[in-house]
Order: sequence, then structure tokens, then C-alpha cells
Amino acid sequence: MRNDEDFKKNLKKVNQFKINSKDHITDIIQYFSNSGFNAKRLAIACDIYKQMILDEECTKFFGLAGALVPAGMQGVIYDFIKEDFIDILVTTGANLTHDLAETLGFHHLQGEIDGTKINDSSLHNQELNRIYDVYLPNKVYEGIEDFISTLKIPQNDMSVSSFLSYLGQELPNNSNSILKICSEKNIPIFCPAFTDSGLALQLGFHFQKLNLNHFKDMLKMVDLAWDSKHAGVCIIGGGVPKNFIMQSLQFCPNSAMYAIQITMDRPEPGGLSGATLQEAISWGKVNEKAKYSTIISDATIALPILLWFLKTIKKQE
Amino acid sequence: MRNDEDFKKNLKKVNQFKINSKDHITDIIQYFSNSGFNAKRLAIACDIYKQMILDEECTKFFGLAGALVPAGMQGVIYDFIKEDFIDILVTTGANLTHDLAETLGFHHLQGEIDGTKINDSSLHNQELNRIYDVYLPNKVYEGIEDFISTLKIPQNDMSVSSFLSYLGQELPNNSNSILKICSEKNIPIFCPAFTDSGLALQLGFHFQKLNLNHFKDMLKMVDLAWDSKHAGVCIIGGGVPKNFIMQSLQFCPNSAMYAIQITMDRPEPGGLSGATLQEAISWGKVNEKAKYSTIISDATIALPILLWFLKTIKKQE
Amino acid sequence: MRNDEDFKKNLKKVNQFKINSKDHITDIIQYFSNSGFNAKRLAIACDIYKQMILDEECTKFFGLAGALVPAGMQGVIYDFIKEDFIDILVTTGANLTHDLAETLGFHHLQGEIDGTKINDSSLHNQELNRIYDVYLPNKVYEGIEDFISTLKIPQNDMSVSSFLSYLGQELPNNSNSILKICSEKNIPIFCPAFTDSGLALQLGFHFQKLNLNHFKDMLKMVDLAWDSKHAGVCIIGGGVPKNFIMQSLQFCPNSAMYAIQITMDRPEPGGLSGATLQEAISWGKVNEKAKYSTIISDATIALPILLWFLKTIKKQE
Amino acid sequence: MRNDEDFKKNLKKVNQFKINSKDHITDIIQYFSNSGFNAKRLAIACDIYKQMILDEECTKFFGLAGALVPAGMQGVIYDFIKEDFIDILVTTGANLTHDLAETLGFHHLQGEIDGTKINDSSLHNQELNRIYDVYLPNKVYEGIEDFISTLKIPQNDMSVSSFLSYLGQELPNNSNSILKICSEKNIPIFCPAFTDSGLALQLGFHFQKLNLNHFKDMLKMVDLAWDSKHAGVCIIGGGVPKNFIMQSLQFCPNSAMYAIQITMDRPEPGGLSGATLQEAISWGKVNEKAKYSTIISDATIALPILLWFLKTIKKQE
Repeated sequence: MRNDEDFKKNLKKVNQFKINSKDHITDIIQYFSNSGFNAKRLAIACDIYKQMILDEECTKFFGLAGALVPAGMQGVIYDFIKEDFIDILVTTGANLTHDLAETLGFHHLQGEIDGTKINDSSLHNQELNRIYDVYLPNKVYEGIEDFISTLKIPQNDMSVSSFLSYLGQELPNNSNSILKICSEKNIPIFCPAFTDSGLALQLGFHFQKLNLNHFKDMLKMVDLAWDSKHAGVCIIGGGVPKNFIMQSLQFCPNSAMYAIQITMDRPEPGGLSGATLQEAISWGKVNEKAKYSTIISDATIALPILLWFLKTIKKQE
Repeated sequence: MRNDEDFKKNLKKVNQFKINSKDHITDIIQYFSNSGFNAKRLAIACDIYKQMILDEECTKFFGLAGALVPAGMQGVIYDFIKEDFIDILVTTGANLTHDLAETLGFHHLQGEIDGTKINDSSLHNQELNRIYDVYLPNKVYEGIEDFISTLKIPQNDMSVSSFLSYLGQELPNNSNSILKICSEKNIPIFCPAFTDSGLALQLGFHFQKLNLNHFKDMLKMVDLAWDSKHAGVCIIGGGVPKNFIMQSLQFCPNSAMYAIQITMDRPEPGGLSGATLQEAISWGKVNEKAKYSTIISDATIALPILLWFLKTIKKQE
Repeated sequence: MRNDEDFKKNLKKVNQFKINSKDHITDIIQYFSNSGFNAKRLAIACDIYKQMILDEECTKFFGLAGALVPAGMQGVIYDFIKEDFIDILVTTGANLTHDLAETLGFHHLQGEIDGTKINDSSLHNQELNRIYDVYLPNKVYEGIEDFISTLKIPQNDMSVSSFLSYLGQELPNNSNSILKICSEKNIPIFCPAFTDSGLALQLGFHFQKLNLNHFKDMLKMVDLAWDSKHAGVCIIGGGVPKNFIMQSLQFCPNSAMYAIQITMDRPEPGGLSGATLQEAISWGKVNEKAKYSTIISDATIALPILLWFLKTIKKQE
Repeated sequence: MRNDEDFKKNLKKVNQFKINSKDHITDIIQYFSNSGFNAKRLAIACDIYKQMILDEECTKFFGLAGALVPAGMQGVIYDFIKEDFIDILVTTGANLTHDLAETLGFHHLQGEIDGTKINDSSLHNQELNRIYDVYLPNKVYEGIEDFISTLKIPQNDMSVSSFLSYLGQELPNNSNSILKICSEKNIPIFCPAFTDSGLALQLGFHFQKLNLNHFKDMLKMVDLAWDSKHAGVCIIGGGVPKNFIMQSLQFCPNSAMYAIQITMDRPEPGGLSGATLQEAISWGKVNEKAKYSTIISDATIALPILLWFLKTIKKQE
């Protein structure tokens, strides 16, 4: 314990709260802040993100793993960007591929029958690719292919983030597209494992000389961290996006002063996805005086709640 | 797949929704119903519980594991009972012990410093018992002891549920007490592992002849299941409450027609807490035509959301 | 950190070990002790259990949750008892029911097809009850019923542990039966949630006056803890068995000096099953100087390995 | 259910096995094959890997996530390669960075005190980076830097796998080095998120013109999958290595005929790391007739067991 006396002095009652039908999300988060377990941690995360937004010197790094677009989270992520809640986005090729599919007018599907009980051989015969309980028809990839073939990539050795910015420009206007809004708002998207994606596969097939420069991205990211007076990070799900942000923060003068992660991964297997934010202090990635909170939750529940809270707070101010 | 053609015909678009600061929880749940992963399952659970409430022939069984009162969930559970969303409550001795403590005016505490980093030896010296990030002073147990010593238990061999109903009567009025409201509303509380609790320990020390009849509870529970035309179950966290409800439902003519579980446990280790609701169909505990949904989530987040939704819906109707 | 200097001084190399086909389990555990993550924790647990066995003043409490007998672990648990590795067993009604079934000559079944893909409605029609990937025919319960009807229970208000000892006596000789060997060796079995089981259901149906005294068990367990100079605990899977042992250890003069848990549950949801052994120090259940280790693992893998190690060590000495 | 009659006909007894101190790992795996839950799945995985080895037309893809070298698994992975159990390795930059550190004579450290209770600020001051319960001194990175500065990289636009093969050549002889043995045996190492690593950071700092061609790797991997008559995959922990193998297998004529994964990730959050191997059938990544098994286990326990089994089997034949 850092200080026994301080700890004991600062103990306060857990509040046995009541929910009213008229409550707004800000009320609920207020109740949660006086509770325990993950509810409390979600409330702390809401407060930390609010502080990140109010801190004008804070550079907000956002790590987005998995494939959250298939689960209907495209508009949520779009709004994080539109509302200026993200300064730098690090994500997977999967999220970009699925974002592109939706932007081009294709759709992910949900089915009446529980996904985990579907016969996957039958789905394969019907050319439906399953992502837990969401289905993506094969023909969507043909649509992406058609679009890819129209591209005139400016430089074969541009960085991945520059390419993604160019890609966003080429896309039609769309009120949900992550690639489009990042391009419009000049928010860099880093994708360190870009070639691990359907989008990159099709690029590779069509543009044999393409050699996007991943090292440029890495060095640019280090520069961005270096220039951040106050860094704030929000990690959704871990993976490469988490590690790529964290390794850059070692070069940030004060390391991260704010840190949030929403994940289902846990520390015990020793992987970085589930590592605690405290562990990052030992590496100099998170500041020892940082405010931090980890929520063990499916991002499809916690991320929309976080956005709902932040949009409401912003409106009130 | 039950029917390939039906499955394919019924596929519909995942909706890439937008959240507005003016949205209410019913809007959010509506968005979630067109998404995927746990968000969708939470929306389905909200809809199933709504149907349970609207179905006048439905007996609503509610299984509450863990110790959720320490995390500030006492008022939430109280309201589930007050609003007639629970007909039969099955819970742990822990929840009852902590409910009793709060009802007697004692409090659980939250600390400024992250619970997982506290030195537990130091806490022990300070007589603070830790429950993840919540702290309970030892002296609360002394307060419970004082109360227990005032009891005049009507019969040594009454059932646990009858004893708990008596206990509720003896408690002061309280706007959050689970024991009190269940006693007032004649909602039976079953606690199959009652002697696995601080409350039972103190009863055992003071009343040497006490022999609460657990078999009476078991048979009464079977009768209640037997008499249920439509059974609906909501399982929070698994454990003995889940199994006790499920074993009784084998004697319910139609088994459960509605089933919800909110848990962090998973099927792979083979335990009942994490078992799927489909598995319960093989046992005749859940009906093969039942509507069911499992949400992998900390109950401290999902349970208040569920209540918030249900209270709002009720008000609207 | 308790002491920075000591910590740094005692750091030693992680050993990049090699496995040979001639290695025995004791070699593997030796390698693991110089590794990290769960492998290291398993090695520490093996060493702690070894010390518990060598410490002649140690009373060994063993908490066994879930239903491990269906997964083929009956003989493993039997041997823990036969080899004097368990002094007091606390378990679920499920393990006892399934132990009884096997002892009476019935069997659990495994199927060729992946359990999670089986149609549970079809299983229900075939009267096969599913436990993840294990199947139990309904008719087994009829066999248990036949046996139950032959019992002449000595006293309606005997403790559950006394009843289970009597039950063991009535069983045929069997080289795997947990109930039988515990009865023969006079190892008490506590089952605090006994009425939450198929065995208790059938007892309740046949013996309407049966009122096994759960409070006697609770007090007997407290006495056993009180009389333990050195307590050692091994928790498999958490649940009521864990909590029941832990609540008793508050009355043990030195609390637990050795503590092991093998579980898939985690601390973050705040439940006792996943709570760390450190947390138990704050409650005075585990001694601040105790040796302890938690392994996050399915017990069906870690428990046989632990037995294999202990039997080998015993033979060597 | 694919076929009710076949299913029922093929049910067999769960074997309540006994462990003897003289048993070898092959005996234990044999017992496990007649059990349930994860023990059974581990036995199935052992059998599948054995078949992969015996099938001369099988190309064995091995996906290695996380940072397993810090936990002492370097020699285990080395032996998988040395014994010809791996034809194509896909891994993270972390494993390569830590492999390089050990190969250059540096060490990971384990401490006496439970890693999760260490004060990370104090570790930071002592320049010790924590990986759960393993510690890596900062100065190791200086040693890596010294080595990097001696490199004469043949081509700035070589593929990552070609670079890693070159790197292996430059390393001193070492009986545990993954990079070295892969280079010697001409086993390609793919690392799609290479720039997400300490090794790549230092390369980027020293070689400003370096632009390793990630697209070449992607296309080479597709060619390798295309040319595989029988593909077999073993996935450790998920992450980018899993997805990169899986996306390539869509181009394999028969997709994977054998598939194993050892992971702590689960399907419910919808991410690819935890996705079932059945789901991969819908995508055409795993063949509908494939033999597959997922073990929910920490790799530090299951991977050495798998190697131990395979080395023993190989010796016997």
C-alpha cells in the first residue's frame, strides 16, 4: 500500500443507488462511480476520457482491435473521430476491410438462429462467412475487388497511414466511414499488421509492385508520441494496436497520463492484450501518476456507453 | 442448421447505428438489437425479460450468485422485486449477509487506491476485509451479531425460506433491503448453501439447536416449478442459484419458456455456471422452443442496464 | 514491493529448458519452476502440496467444485484420498451424485461428435443429458433411485457429513468410489449445498421426514479448522466448496499456511470463486506468511498432473 | 446433429482412469483421450499433431502469438522446429525480439515475490520491465542495439521473412535460438506485424532507408498455402499469427485438414483469437472434414506437454 493512513482516510461509502426511468446515462455513470467491480471501473474510465477531452494538451491515442465494424460499431467509432475524441487511430486490417465494405454499400448480416449452433459447412456452401453471430457474403469481397482495381496508388513506397489517407479520399461520401472521416479530418490511421487483412490481399494481387513502407509509419508514430505533452490512450481489446501504441509511448516525454482499456483479455496468460495498465508503468509506457482504468467487458457494450456519456457531457458544456 | 432456407431468408442487415445525446436506454437497446456479439445478446435479453413480464402466466425465477450487494447493487435487486419482476429469488448466503449489514445501517466502503494493489496484510491489520475493490470493516460482523442475538426464531426446523421470511419481518423498514421487501411481498428466498455464509455462522453460534430444514425448501421449490405454466429464468452469475433453479425446472411441465443468463463464466471448463442455455435443453430444464440469451458481462454493468430498460418500458405502458 | 533490495537480489534467470522423451513428470515440474506464467505457478503448487504432505502437523482441506467425475476424474480424486493427500473434503452434490452413479456401475459417455455442435433437442428426445461433451442417460437416475429406496437412514437429523459416511458404508466395494473410500478412511465429506443435487432430490422424495442438519456440519467444520495447527488448502474450481473452507479458516489459529487454487475463474467480476489468495489474507483466511499459488487452468489437465507429481515424489521418498 | 443414429451408436464409456507414478506422458494422454472437457481435447490435439507428422504430404503451419520466450518456452519452440514438427512459422515481433535477446546471451529474470504485487513504479526506477511475473532489464535493449549496429542488411526492400533468415545467419551458434535454427533449416518465419516490436524499432532507428517488403511475405504465404496438398495448423494463442495463417488457407486447395489451437481466448467477444475452428469452416479456411481440437489452456502448460508427447512418439517409431 502506498500509504496506509491516506488509504484509510479516503475510504467512502459504497452507494446503494436506485435507477429511475427518467435517468440519463450521466446519472447512471454517477451511480456507478460510487459502486464497485466493473461498474465502478467503467465510471472511472468515463471520467478519465472526459478529462482527456478537456485537457487541451492531451494527444488522444485510440487502439481498436478485432473486427468491431461487423458488430455494428462503425457509426460509434466514426463519431469518436467526428467529435474530436481521437487524435491518432491504430487499428487492424480487419476493421479497415469491413469499414471499406460498408462504405461501398455492402452489409454485414445477422441471422435469426443462434450463430454458435449454425452448421458451418452449410454456411460455406451458401458462401456466407461467419464472424461469431454475424455473416458476411463472399460476394462482398468481389465488390471490394472492383473498387480496388480502380485505384491509382500515388507511390508504391508510401507509408501505410499515407495510403489509408489516400484511400479515404477515393471513397464516396458516407456518414459512417472511418476511412473517410479520418482522411477528411486528417486523423492518421496506423495499421501495423496491414498485410494481415483482406484489403491488403487484394491490393497485393492487383499492385504487384506495391511496397507500403511500414517503417515510416513506425517512425512517424514514435515522433507523434515524442511530441505529445500529455498522452492519453484508450485501448479497445488489446492486440497489435495496443502494443504499437504502448511501444511508442516509451518515447513520450511524460508517457501516458491517462489510460483506459476495455477488454475481455486477462493478465494471467502473460500476453500483452490482457496485461494490466500498471505493468505498463514498469516499462515507462504509462506514467506512475497516470489515471487509469481497465474494464473487463465486451467492447460492443462498453464502447457505445462511453460514447453516449461523452457526447452528453460535451453537449452540456 | 435447423433449416437452411429459413436461415438465409431471415438474414437482415446489421445496422451501423448512431448514438445521440438525447437517446434513452430504450433507443440504445433498439440499436443493439440490430448489432452483433454481446450487445445484440443484451438487447435480446431485454426483450425476453419484457415478454416474461407481459406474460401473465409466467413465473419468474431469479438466480443471484456472488456477492453483488458489496458492489452497490442492493437497490437494483430491491427494485427488481418491488416492480414485480421477480416471483422467486434464489441466492447465496453472501448476498443475504451483506444485505443484512446494509439494512442494519452498516456500509461497504470503496477506496481511492486500486484494490488489486493494496497490501492485504496491512488491510488485515486494519481489520478491513477486501472484496476485490470493496472493503468491509470487521466491526460490521459485530453489529450483525448484536442483531442476531435479539432474534426469537419461531421453529428450529423451519425451512430456510421460512426463516428468511421471518428474518425480513424482524428488520427495520429500509428502502433497499432485499430481505425486507421479499418478506413484505411474500416473495420466497431460497438459499440452498445457507450454512456457507457469515449470517448462518452467527446463527449457528447463538442457536445451538437450530436445524433449518433444507429439504423442505428443495421440495417447495420443486412444487413451485411443477405449478408454473410458463417458467422464465434470469440467472446472474451461475453458481448454486443457477443449478438449484435448473434442477427444479426439470419438474416444470413445459420447462423454461424464457431464459436469460448474465455471467463471466464460460462453457469450456464443463462447470454448470458457464454451461450454455442450449445444454439445459438436453436435460429438459429449458424448453426446446424457449427464447434464450446469454450475455458474457460483469453483472454490475448489465444488471442495472436491464433494470433501467424494464422500468422505462413499464412506465411507457 | 515489500523490499526493493531483497527483490532485486533474489532475481534469477528464467531457464530456457529442453524436454527429453525420457523425462519424468518430476523433471518437467522442475523445468517449469524456472519458467514463468502458469507453468511456473503449477510448479510452485506442486512444491506447496509436497510441503503440505511432508508437514505432519498440516491438516489438508480440499475443495472440489463442479462436476469433475463426469470428465473421468473420479479415480484421480479417489487416489488423492487413498494416498492421504486429503484430510477433509468439501464438495458439491453434483460430484457426489455422479460418484454414486459410477459406483453403482453406471457410466458417463463420450461421443464422437463435438459436444458443442450437438442438437440438444435431439439429445433430449434420446434421453441423454449433456455435460459439455459428456452424456449421461436418464436411466442412470432410475438406477440411483432404486438404490436410494433400499437405504435405512439411521437418523433424520444427522449431519450431512455423517449421512455421507453412512452412504459410503452402504455402497459396494469399488476401486474408484469417493464416497466409499472416504467412509472407509474416515475422511469427512462436507457438502454445504447438498440439496442442490440429484442425490438429495431423490432422498427428499423417498424420505419425507429427512432433515439432515447442515448447521452441525458448519460447526464441525469450524471445530476442525480451530484444531488445525497448520492448515493447508487446495481449491479446485472455487464455488461453495472454496467459500466454505475459507470461512472456516477464519477460526483457524494460524489461518492457512499453504494455499493452492486451480481454477478458470478470475478476480475482476468480484466473485469469491475467482478471488485471489492474497485477498483471503485480508480476511484472515490465509496467513500473511503463507505459501500460495493460483493456476488458471482447467482442472482436468492440472489435477492429474498434480497427482502424478505427488505420487512420484512419495514413491521416491 | 449430423446423424442421430451414428452419434448414439458411437457413444462410449468415459474411463475413470488411475495414474501410476511409472506412467509416461503417452499413458497420461491415453487416459485423457477417454475423459472429457479440456483433458480430452488435449489428447485429441496430441493425436492430430501426430497424424500431421505422419502424413508426408502435410505442410505444418505454426502460429505463435504473445511473448512466450520470456516464460522459458524458447527451447520448446526450438525443438518443435528441430524435430521437423513445423514447416512454416508465423509469429510476433515480440517473440523474435526476446529470442534475439536470449541468443545474444541476455536473460529474462524471475523474482521471488509474486509479480502481480510488485510496485511497478519501483520497477521502473530500477529499469526492470515487467512481463506478468518475468522481468527484463532495460540494458538488454542496449545489447540488442549493439548487435543491430553491426548488421549489413543485403537489401532494403527484401521481405521480412528473407530478412529474418539473414538475421539468423548473423547470429552466433545457439542451442535454443528460434531465429538461428529456422535460418539453418530454411524454415520461413513470417511476422506480419514486424514493426510492432523492439527489434523493428531499433532497425528503423539505425537503417533509415529500410523498407522491408511486407507484401512479398503476404504473397509468398499465399503461394505456400496454394501449394499445400494437406495443410495442418497449430495455433498458439491467436492474434495476428492465427489470422495470417487462416487468411492464407483460403487459397489452399483443400483448406486445412488438421487444426489445433491452444488459447485462453474465447468466442463470445467475436474476435478472431477466440473464434472456434468450426467458424473457420464457413470461410473455407478449415476443411469441413478436418480433424480439429481447441484447448482452453495457458500455452506454457499445454505446449511443453504436446512436445513431450510428440518427441516420445517419434522415438518409439
